[in-house]
Amino acid sequence: MSSESLLVVPRLGELRYPSPLRLSTAMGDGIANFVLDTAIVRYRLETGGDVDAPNWFFEKAGPRDRIFFDPARVRGCIVTCGGLCPGLNNVIRSLVLELHHNYGVREIFGARYGYRGLVPNLAEPFLRLTPAFVDYIHQAGGTVLGTSRGEQDIGVMVDTLQRERFDMLFCVGGDGTLRGAARIAAEVTRRGAPIAIIGIPKTIDNDIPFVTPSFGFSTAVEQAARVVHGAHMEARSVFNGVGLVKLMGRDAGFIACGATLASQEVNYALIPETPIVWDGPNGFLEHLRRRLEARHHAVVVVAEGVARQIADGEGRPPDVGPWLKERIVRHFQEAGTLVDVKYLDPSYFIRSVPANATDALLCDEMARAAAHAAMAGRTGLVVGRVHGAYVHVPMERLAAATQRVDPESDLWRSVLSSTGQPRRWG
Amino acid sequence: MSSESLLVVPRLGELRYPSPLRLSTAMGDGIANFVLDTAIVRYRLETGGDVDAPNWFFEKAGPRDRIFFDPARVRGCIVTCGGLCPGLNNVIRSLVLELHHNYGVREIFGARYGYRGLVPNLAEPFLRLTPAFVDYIHQAGGTVLGTSRGEQDIGVMVDTLQRERFDMLFCVGGDGTLRGAARIAAEVTRRGAPIAIIGIPKTIDNDIPFVTPSFGFSTAVEQAARVVHGAHMEARSVFNGVGLVKLMGRDAGFIACGATLASQEVNYALIPETPIVWDGPNGFLEHLRRRLEARHHAVVVVAEGVARQIADGEGRPPDVGPWLKERIVRHFQEAGTLVDVKYLDPSYFIRSVPANATDALLCDEMARAAAHAAMAGRTGLVVGRVHGAYVHVPMERLAAATQRVDPESDLWRSVLSSTGQPRRWG
Amino acid sequence: MSSESLLVVPRLGELRYPSPLRLSTAMGDGIANFVLDTAIVRYRLETGGDVDAPNWFFEKAGPRDRIFFDPARVRGCIVTCGGLCPGLNNVIRSLVLELHHNYGVREIFGARYGYRGLVPNLAEPFLRLTPAFVDYIHQAGGTVLGTSRGEQDIGVMVDTLQRERFDMLFCVGGDGTLRGAARIAAEVTRRGAPIAIIGIPKTIDNDIPFVTPSFGFSTAVEQAARVVHGAHMEARSVFNGVGLVKLMGRDAGFIACGATLASQEVNYALIPETPIVWDGPNGFLEHLRRRLEARHHAVVVVAEGVARQIADGEGRPPDVGPWLKERIVRHFQEAGTLVDVKYLDPSYFIRSVPANATDALLCDEMARAAAHAAMAGRTGLVVGRVHGAYVHVPMERLAAATQRVDPESDLWRSVLSSTGQPRRWG
Amino acid sequence: MSSESLLVVPRLGELRYPSPLRLSTAMGDGIANFVLDTAIVRYRLETGGDVDAPNWFFEKAGPRDRIFFDPARVRGCIVTCGGLCPGLNNVIRSLVLELHHNYGVREIFGARYGYRGLVPNLAEPFLRLTPAFVDYIHQAGGTVLGTSRGEQDIGVMVDTLQRERFDMLFCVGGDGTLRGAARIAAEVTRRGAPIAIIGIPKTIDNDIPFVTPSFGFSTAVEQAARVVHGAHMEARSVFNGVGLVKLMGRDAGFIACGATLASQEVNYALIPETPIVWDGPNGFLEHLRRRLEARHHAVVVVAEGVARQIADGEGRPPDVGPWLKERIVRHFQEAGTLVDVKYLDPSYFIRSVPANATDALLCDEMARAAAHAAMAGRTGLVVGRVHGAYVHVPMERLAAATQRVDPESDLWRSVLSSTGQPRRWG
Repeated sequence: MSSESLLVVPRLGELRYPSPLRLSTAMGDGIANFVLDTAIVRYRLETGGDVDAPNWFFEKAGPRDRIFFDPARVRGCIVTCGGLCPGLNNVIRSLVLELHHNYGVREIFGARYGYRGLVPNLAEPFLRLTPAFVDYIHQAGGTVLGTSRGEQDIGVMVDTLQRERFDMLFCVGGDGTLRGAARIAAEVTRRGAPIAIIGIPKTIDNDIPFVTPSFGFSTAVEQAARVVHGAHMEARSVFNGVGLVKLMGRDAGFIACGATLASQEVNYALIPETPIVWDGPNGFLEHLRRRLEARHHAVVVVAEGVARQIADGEGRPPDVGPWLKERIVRHFQEAGTLVDVKYLDPSYFIRSVPANATDALLCDEMARAAAHAAMAGRTGLVVGRVHGAYVHVPMERLAAATQRVDPESDLWRSVLSSTGQPRRWG
Repeated sequence: MSSESLLVVPRLGELRYPSPLRLSTAMGDGIANFVLDTAIVRYRLETGGDVDAPNWFFEKAGPRDRIFFDPARVRGCIVTCGGLCPGLNNVIRSLVLELHHNYGVREIFGARYGYRGLVPNLAEPFLRLTPAFVDYIHQAGGTVLGTSRGEQDIGVMVDTLQRERFDMLFCVGGDGTLRGAARIAAEVTRRGAPIAIIGIPKTIDNDIPFVTPSFGFSTAVEQAARVVHGAHMEARSVFNGVGLVKLMGRDAGFIACGATLASQEVNYALIPETPIVWDGPNGFLEHLRRRLEARHHAVVVVAEGVARQIADGEGRPPDVGPWLKERIVRHFQEAGTLVDVKYLDPSYFIRSVPANATDALLCDEMARAAAHAAMAGRTGLVVGRVHGAYVHVPMERLAAATQRVDPESDLWRSVLSSTGQPRRWG
Repeated sequence: MSSESLLVVPRLGELRYPSPLRLSTAMGDGIANFVLDTAIVRYRLETGGDVDAPNWFFEKAGPRDRIFFDPARVRGCIVTCGGLCPGLNNVIRSLVLELHHNYGVREIFGARYGYRGLVPNLAEPFLRLTPAFVDYIHQAGGTVLGTSRGEQDIGVMVDTLQRERFDMLFCVGGDGTLRGAARIAAEVTRRGAPIAIIGIPKTIDNDIPFVTPSFGFSTAVEQAARVVHGAHMEARSVFNGVGLVKLMGRDAGFIACGATLASQEVNYALIPETPIVWDGPNGFLEHLRRRLEARHHAVVVVAEGVARQIADGEGRPPDVGPWLKERIVRHFQEAGTLVDVKYLDPSYFIRSVPANATDALLCDEMARAAAHAAMAGRTGLVVGRVHGAYVHVPMERLAAATQRVDPESDLWRSVLSSTGQPRRWG
Repeated sequence: MSSESLLVVPRLGELRYPSPLRLSTAMGDGIANFVLDTAIVRYRLETGGDVDAPNWFFEKAGPRDRIFFDPARVRGCIVTCGGLCPGLNNVIRSLVLELHHNYGVREIFGARYGYRGLVPNLAEPFLRLTPAFVDYIHQAGGTVLGTSRGEQDIGVMVDTLQRERFDMLFCVGGDGTLRGAARIAAEVTRRGAPIAIIGIPKTIDNDIPFVTPSFGFSTAVEQAARVVHGAHMEARSVFNGVGLVKLMGRDAGFIACGATLASQEVNYALIPETPIVWDGPNGFLEHLRRRLEARHHAVVVVAEGVARQIADGEGRPPDVGPWLKERIVRHFQEAGTLVDVKYLDPSYFIRSVPANATDALLCDEMARAAAHAAMAGRTGLVVGRVHGAYVHVPMERLAAATQRVDPESDLWRSVLSSTGQPRRWG
């Protein structure tokens, strides 16, 4: 039997105010409901089979009938960090609309260019975020707040939050950003400041646990599948053509798997989670060569994180796309087989497009869940998505786990079915 | 405490053959696995709160290490029924590829124009389905097999299956089709024929239970959101403009809700599940009129099934789109308020587009799960999707349930948040 | 030999100011040039063959090295009228950017909701148009200024122009709008007011002469071709399926022809310019029926203006789409042939989309040509496009001509080649 | 006064057969017409101004009422060469459909992988091209025939044409391909063989004279504009962000100019035709740096042919994209200004997409014109497009001219207006 535990998130204090949302607390009256504090969501669904893993229960996200902050006095702040991801503007927009229209919050600000925006000597002035300002921003890619990478001093940022009298900070970002948010939350707690620190996980790679799928991932798969299709067309149009596409995925191959299944045109999907043997009679290069002799074209997708497998000792991993192109060309030359490799690297383009409908919907729900959590005085949490339900994930739980493509999962089996590639290399 | 039960599906007999799929039966060896017969999937995730509903456990779908049919002798048949839905060709294609490439099945046929194709005096000849034939079909909308609506004689169809020596029939279709499939399965059982009858649920409306989301739904929402955006542009560009969009949903308003959340541009979402009061000071028409006086434009989405609410007594429900356009124009005339209504009905177009990436992926997994179920001698089942896991749903269980938008659900609350419309009319 | 004439447009007066544009007046220095007043563009290209039509020469549009208005004092006004058309916002944007950035004009205004915006008791306040305001508007369909149909009092509108001290009015609209502009120009001249009245022709139908192609037309054809493709998928997927698409074109069938050639999936293109015989053995209905018996599917495109051919005597023409659907169904019923007609009417949607790349480019050039014409004190002209060159077309010349699909043209011959339909009906 | 001349193309002989096309030879009967041999098209439109260039008149393309070949015995061959370009499959398809359906030609073949397909020891077997085979190919990018680069032996290829008894060869390709076609035509003439050699110009760069725009160019500009938009989003989202996009254009900057005008988001368009000064206070790098200090983001588009400007002496030009990225980074480092350059190279993707509606239409007309020319016994010609009219361009005329962006043209002036970049560098 597997272990089970309920994960709770910190609360700033007593829920002193009635929610201004006109929802019902009764089931059966046909009116949309507040979420009860007792509502919890189970993480693991499958039993029997070989599944024997720990299970968790999360607090369900959503509007509470009583809230911690007085909406009339709330000052909120939003910051977006790290690389671009489709949907950032949707998240900003829905945060603003939920807080403004539904809670009546009037003071919402955006920090410019990521955590830099909370560091006085680096910062541009805060942007005032109103419904008019955000009206159309979801139709554009990127982030209207700007973004940056890297850490900033935690104490300095908390000073800024206090000086600006912000009651809540929404941190939209990936792994590093959320670790930063956890440290901000800890410092805020240490100072006894009643500021809600809420994380909204952004990972185009879909590699953050308890957030599946993450926003932007569906759009990325859709765009990646289009590029794979282009690579397929290039490969088929020349004799012994190889379309080689590098896709995002520093640690996890979800985008490569998704593009493979969505396009149905990939012959080899190479991801960080499965060890790749390049050389030898059963290695990738020779397998590819045999395929070209038989079929005269092939499509190869490689996730950027495969680079780590080829890093020698202490060195920095190479850019896996050009590296692999060169390896293929060399191998074929040595074997005396013609090859014509077309290499495509669509990463920046994919990151910059607006969210598709699936992600637009996801962003809206995730942002509103974050607004509800903050208004209800929750803190130190990240909004998660577990089997379609939105939940509160304690920040430290996230830090303790990773999400990767499991080579023994249904997903990877589907990839093998679709590509026909060997179940293991070498 | 809620009741729980495990739902099992019929089996044709002993699993006599080893599967030709080169998968592993061991966890931990890093190789993709067969699915164990003991693997089950829980339906209900949420506990606490006000959730107090029956729960079910389903058999997990996927390849078994032993199978019922000898792949070398299998003759399979595919039929597509009912209205068009994005992804039909993807389903056909993945069925063919999984059976051909992975199981080695060489005889796969397509019945033409739905169940008509199984009735000798109506039928066109069966299409032979090969990997070459299906190579590019997923890039086109529609169904290469053709489709039709309506029932055919069960006995005659089973006669055809036996005469053609089909071992498995894949029925891709909606409610009615799957009820037909259940009756075919019952007749096959009565005759003691070892033919697997497998349903693959097709519902662009997303209204079949235990199949969420159904294939085509994401594409439909995406296209619907684009049309809503067009309606929004039309409405904003004229003085007191109303963009009125009729969307699919004979019984359930999921597409209307999805398009509302994905577009973020709808002011009124009218769905069959919530009673609409048209007249009176708090009715829809007057509410719309007040909005136009204040904001000068509005977007209204109405699901086709709302027609049922306005059907008088015995009469056939009207086409709700033109009906509502006329009611709006009349109401505004009587009130002396200018209005300019643009009406859009994109249904046929939406049904005809190819699947987007999300649906392409879904179709592939669902079709392969169906192929696995048939090869493993399961029958009388529909392939379901529960919280991302593929499962076997007994056909009679499907018949006993419906899926509708629950006005007390998170989904409807999100719609209210986004539109700002009243939580109830009148 | 055909007659030839040079068409000149009115000028407000002497060109008193040097242009602030930093262009060259010398050829051969490798620097982009001003356009000389002597540059003219020939209308007719083909000679020999059977071509024996009048020819014209137009003034070439573009920046002049001396201008009429002092940019520092100019007050400009833009108005958009009539139905939506892809590219309206692009035109507004490029007008503002050219006047602001290149000429240094600081006072640019938009009249709201078409000519209504120039009539005090109907008007909303003028919008101030700045580079910041127009920065992203080209990514949206519709018109940020709003639009309306119908005429307004000429004298009242000229009063407004004078009271607001506008120096130039850009009228973006179709036939009716440009006729209105011509009357405004005449009244302005009568009063001796130095106001430039510049027309920018908007016709999604491409039916205005000397403006080929008009902006929005390419986008309309592209969208229409997508809908035709959907209709084709619907038609092929059922037994004896007919996909019937009504397309825009009140007087001219250019969109129907364009969608036919771009999609290559139309079997019958019905346009206002060619007489259609519906009944009889060589009529359209019986031809369609024979095709269905042979091929079991067909796609029919009908331009809305075909309605005029079926109008009886004094009556108002019917909506040709539903009319034709009903006629097809009735004819097949009477003949005892099965038919399944799917009818699609995408007009409002097509009108509302943003401009595609081709139209975006066209709008930009056309708007900048309009700005140059106004600054150089031209008036009473419409910006035209003749064989890729932008020209000044006198307003009265436009009124004296129409543009229709010539059934003896290369275009119509291409349509016949692609559809295989009879060269004449009956 | 400029010189004028009529350019005629070679003819294989007397037009012995009546055309099977059911067209009219009379104007005014309302029926689509054959093209008369006397119909000619003027190249130059503008007069006055500074235009003082030679003029040409071309034969108008289109169906003749009498033809050279007996359709019942014709054997045609199609070959596609060089890099991919949107629309190749459209051209193949329309050639097949026109020859088959309208002329009744039954023997049409495709050579595989470019001119290799005409060289016995390199060739794959010819593909038989039927209406069924080509039915859907236009929906895919690439070329179903395959392609290759480079020359093959002329004599060997003509041997193949004669051995296979081909009556006509359609060569779809760029500069090099058409030069090859000219040499094939010369050899065919030398041997006195009645084989029509018809070129269909393919240049995604739009750099072939008398073919404007070439097919694929509109699609390329559309896709390039999307990528530029992505680069813009990347640039705006970070502090001092530069989006750098390399676009196709080995000799001519038309795609860079088109993407600039269509997107309206480019700040610097660098093309081969205008000399770029990189260093110094008025050089590009310092201008860019000043812009970033003022505006904090910029988009730079560079055509690949700019590489030639930076090639040192004898060396091979570098890949201009990475080269420029490195130069920008270095310059900013030395100047102590922060910069974050995102580099995008979408070339292979752009080449692989299907034709958009504009190009689909163009391909159809161009292919049918080629079929008409061949059937009428014309040879040694390339199908051209002059101001919207299709014409016969003698192959040697093409070889004697080039098409480049003229820095004194309206096009380049529009680019300067849109970008605001200096009219000359240094």
